[in-house]
Amino acid sequence: MDFKKLFIDNAYRRKVYVKGGNVEVGMTEVKLTPTRNSETGDYVENSPVRIYDTSGKWSDPSFHFDPKKGLPQIRREWIESRGDSVEVGLARPTNKAPFAERKILRLCHGQTQMYYARKGIITPEMEYVALRENMAKANGIEGKMSAKAPRNSLFIQHPGSGSKLREEITPEFVMKEVARGRAIIPANINHAELEPAIIGRNFLVKINTNIGNSSMASSIPEEIEKMLWALKWGSDTIMDLSTGPDIHDTRECIIRNSPAPVGTVPLYQALERVGGIAEDLTWEVFRDVLIEQAQQGVDYFTIHAGLLREFIPAAARRMAGIASRGGSIMAKWILAHNRENFLYEHWDEICQIMAEYDVSFSIGDGLRPGAIADANDEAQLGELKVQGELARRAWQYNVQVMCEGPGHVPMQMIEKNMDCQLDWCDEAPFYTLGPLVTDIAAGYDHITAAIGASIIGWYGTAMLCYVTPKEHLGLPEKNDVREGVVAFKLAAHAVDLAKGHPAAQYRDNAMSKARIEFRWTDQINLSLDPERAEAFRKMNDKNFKIGQAQEEHFCSMCGPKFCSMRVSMDIMKEFRDSEKSNGQM
Amino acid sequence: MDFKKLFIDNAYRRKVYVKGGNVEVGMTEVKLTPTRNSETGDYVENSPVRIYDTSGKWSDPSFHFDPKKGLPQIRREWIESRGDSVEVGLARPTNKAPFAERKILRLCHGQTQMYYARKGIITPEMEYVALRENMAKANGIEGKMSAKAPRNSLFIQHPGSGSKLREEITPEFVMKEVARGRAIIPANINHAELEPAIIGRNFLVKINTNIGNSSMASSIPEEIEKMLWALKWGSDTIMDLSTGPDIHDTRECIIRNSPAPVGTVPLYQALERVGGIAEDLTWEVFRDVLIEQAQQGVDYFTIHAGLLREFIPAAARRMAGIASRGGSIMAKWILAHNRENFLYEHWDEICQIMAEYDVSFSIGDGLRPGAIADANDEAQLGELKVQGELARRAWQYNVQVMCEGPGHVPMQMIEKNMDCQLDWCDEAPFYTLGPLVTDIAAGYDHITAAIGASIIGWYGTAMLCYVTPKEHLGLPEKNDVREGVVAFKLAAHAVDLAKGHPAAQYRDNAMSKARIEFRWTDQINLSLDPERAEAFRKMNDKNFKIGQAQEEHFCSMCGPKFCSMRVSMDIMKEFRDSEKSNGQM
Repeated sequence: MDFKKLFIDNAYRRKVYVKGGNVEVGMTEVKLTPTRNSETGDYVENSPVRIYDTSGKWSDPSFHFDPKKGLPQIRREWIESRGDSVEVGLARPTNKAPFAERKILRLCHGQTQMYYARKGIITPEMEYVALRENMAKANGIEGKMSAKAPRNSLFIQHPGSGSKLREEITPEFVMKEVARGRAIIPANINHAELEPAIIGRNFLVKINTNIGNSSMASSIPEEIEKMLWALKWGSDTIMDLSTGPDIHDTRECIIRNSPAPVGTVPLYQALERVGGIAEDLTWEVFRDVLIEQAQQGVDYFTIHAGLLREFIPAAARRMAGIASRGGSIMAKWILAHNRENFLYEHWDEICQIMAEYDVSFSIGDGLRPGAIADANDEAQLGELKVQGELARRAWQYNVQVMCEGPGHVPMQMIEKNMDCQLDWCDEAPFYTLGPLVTDIAAGYDHITAAIGASIIGWYGTAMLCYVTPKEHLGLPEKNDVREGVVAFKLAAHAVDLAKGHPAAQYRDNAMSKARIEFRWTDQINLSLDPERAEAFRKMNDKNFKIGQAQEEHFCSMCGPKFCSMRVSMDIMKEFRDSEKSNGQM
Repeated sequence: MDFKKLFIDNAYRRKVYVKGGNVEVGMTEVKLTPTRNSETGDYVENSPVRIYDTSGKWSDPSFHFDPKKGLPQIRREWIESRGDSVEVGLARPTNKAPFAERKILRLCHGQTQMYYARKGIITPEMEYVALRENMAKANGIEGKMSAKAPRNSLFIQHPGSGSKLREEITPEFVMKEVARGRAIIPANINHAELEPAIIGRNFLVKINTNIGNSSMASSIPEEIEKMLWALKWGSDTIMDLSTGPDIHDTRECIIRNSPAPVGTVPLYQALERVGGIAEDLTWEVFRDVLIEQAQQGVDYFTIHAGLLREFIPAAARRMAGIASRGGSIMAKWILAHNRENFLYEHWDEICQIMAEYDVSFSIGDGLRPGAIADANDEAQLGELKVQGELARRAWQYNVQVMCEGPGHVPMQMIEKNMDCQLDWCDEAPFYTLGPLVTDIAAGYDHITAAIGASIIGWYGTAMLCYVTPKEHLGLPEKNDVREGVVAFKLAAHAVDLAKGHPAAQYRDNAMSKARIEFRWTDQINLSLDPERAEAFRKMNDKNFKIGQAQEEHFCSMCGPKFCSMRVSMDIMKEFRDSEKSNGQM
């Protein structure tokens, strides 16, 4: 696959770097065509629109585009200049992961991003995310949106938190949110290729894409392609859920090529180590996997430590039992040994390991409901309370935390789930899988999940894990990844709009202006998926044999007589004319 | 196209007729495979699941499947036995609409469904919809759902209305809701082929599919195919928005073959009559079209009478002007003549015509916002108030009414829109187009719209007009219709679940039970789109070279070691065993 072609696809979308302080952040700039004044024939320029961009150097034409070489290590200098880490080994190239030799670092005293934030120190990572989140500034519209549109003036806040919208997202604000535990910057010191991103409900809503092979399918190149594909459509983080062969090398290839934070579920690799027999898992095997993955540079770990023995009876009585893979493995272990979850028992040691590399927690929800009938039940809510306890304990080690959430939840129960999470987990960011708002839409579960994700995002969820159309039916392929990522990207954007994130509406406004002015090129390029928008346009013109409709002030949907947009423009003009002649202008 | 193949596709889904009182209602019955007890090897039957079915005789194997012959006239006897109508003419076969000669009827004194309801008389149409909506009874689970799941015990009600869930949906309840104006049964006396359906927020949420040709594309057979396609996926009503050639015959073919209520926008045909020049429209031309379409059997008319002259300045100042076709036509007429909207001025005469055939109003929202920036603005809300005034005036003639709504509305503004509608329009059913919760998802607008539709449906909208992936880009084709209908069907079902409609969750529970028991055939047949679910399963098995995974207790998503469902079943069994050995069972 030609990765250059995958990203550098369009003369109207280019990579720009926005500078601020000591950092620079890559963004996508969409160049717009001018508006033609139908009376004078003059052209009036339209300002370009800058868009938050997760694709890193992959969308920079000067990049080498070779996944065997990996990304430039933009954090190397930041990390080394802090002088808070020591070298503990060397990672050497392998056949399947032929990257240059790389020093493995460990923090001397657990100086994580949260550690620095609590000390009142702004790291380059914090500077970076502040610049990156400030899309109002990047677009030169600071303060303007909220003045024009009162609905953009406040974030929706949980009743308890009370904080107001910041007109500007500053490094200080980022620092305070990280210190408070309300946001995380997952940034392992061994992932120097990372372009830091922040996850918290007072920032742009993020989405995650799950990739990874299984014992029955897929290969390293396919997984790399899925990852790049996900970044192309705007995924903010990548989870490598591989359970099959080459698990270490697959992950190495993903991390070295990912500008986005990478998450994993270490339990999967631990289970491979013990031949797939859950009963044979031990703390020692798990610990070794944790350290191995931390030293590779994984930015966050899903750890199912909240599933306690006492919750299993309630889970066993459910309609759909335990739908989480990690949860079912741990439940099996607990029952086999008739002991408490060893991840819970070793939580402090786990925190110590995480602190040594600044790996963030994504505290797993092993008891998330797998059916509408099981939503917000005793098992789920019991585990959620323990997730809160574990979060507070992790914070004692300055380890950053988010909590995972469901699953299958009908619409009317989503708010309660969110409220409990904010309350019990002390506002640690929530990271949910959907939720799916019905069980019966197999083949369309990216939509079922995008609906629930929009609602829970609006109530306060910080990151939405995508779901593909193949959910419940099979392993997603490349095109399923695209469908899932775009569905979730639009859900996340809808939430940013609803929460009044500064500048979220800027792109919508540019799109609507292009629409009424029949600037088709701009409508296509401002879309979340310009390739699909363009393909649909072309398909339409071809099917209906329209040569130049793209240039005309109507389209084949309604034809010229019934085009509301054309008529509307006429009306606006007539109205202005009549106001003029009445001396009102 | 072989229409029999289109519908009679699957040995596990069959047409059944549920009888009650003097009527019988067709439903889809999904036969389930038995559950195998892994210990004893015995099989335990699973009850079949009955599903609300909008496809009429098209899914009955004994039907003739010939769209040139039309559907049986199941309402003929009901209508004639009322003795409240007179014959006013004969509709004769044409080349393109070769149906048998048909008497055209007119009501003598406007005895609409609302008229009878207000008199306390239950019509066969009311009996029919009561039987049809009572899915709890059809599935033999009356009263059971709410006892088990408290969240299913109440409809969500607008704060003002206070009414509680009916354990059972009876003909009396239907009658009262129609009399109150809170629900409508669009049922033109000249559409004897209709299987009546009810639209109101205390009933199952309905969805509408727009079809119709434009001057630039499509033909009668294509439109028929789109309609049947929409019914196959469960659309509750069909709007024929044709603006192109053969407008009368296209509509005739649709009505004679549609078991679902058919709606139109008569303004489109009126505009064709005056050569597409909005300024040349007159009340007389419009009135003639109204009568022509009413005599054909159209069940509801969208009429843009709420767009008053005083709202045009606000609309002209908008980001996206007037996005409604009908709205832009009327605005153009108003400006050209500098007069009030003639539809508003002739409202009483329009009501009289509607009452003569029992055509329901769908009062158009000509000023619905076409961009996020325009949501809930002065123009939109101004028109909504007038829609309420028009609804009350229509009720004086016993004409049934629903009101149309937007459009493009960000999530946080949806509730206010719904609340205003319930308040200002005195709880007349709301019928919305989406709303779309962002402007930037061209190519995926069925998802953007399904999100808004779910939210507004939950707040109280009675019918959701579908949006296809081609929205804003081109005219939908057959596959776009499928994508749009299924996306909206799942949104509507999610709302039924959230509102606690009796039995809505029955199908979800059956699906989830099939899922954990690896009954793939049942999962496929209980899905909203069994063909897609099956295709995805097969694609997966083929790609990953799995011969018999369908029969195994795992699938290729996770492979056997990581299958949470398999592990979960093991756990449930172990747990039951341990309880048994502890003497707890």
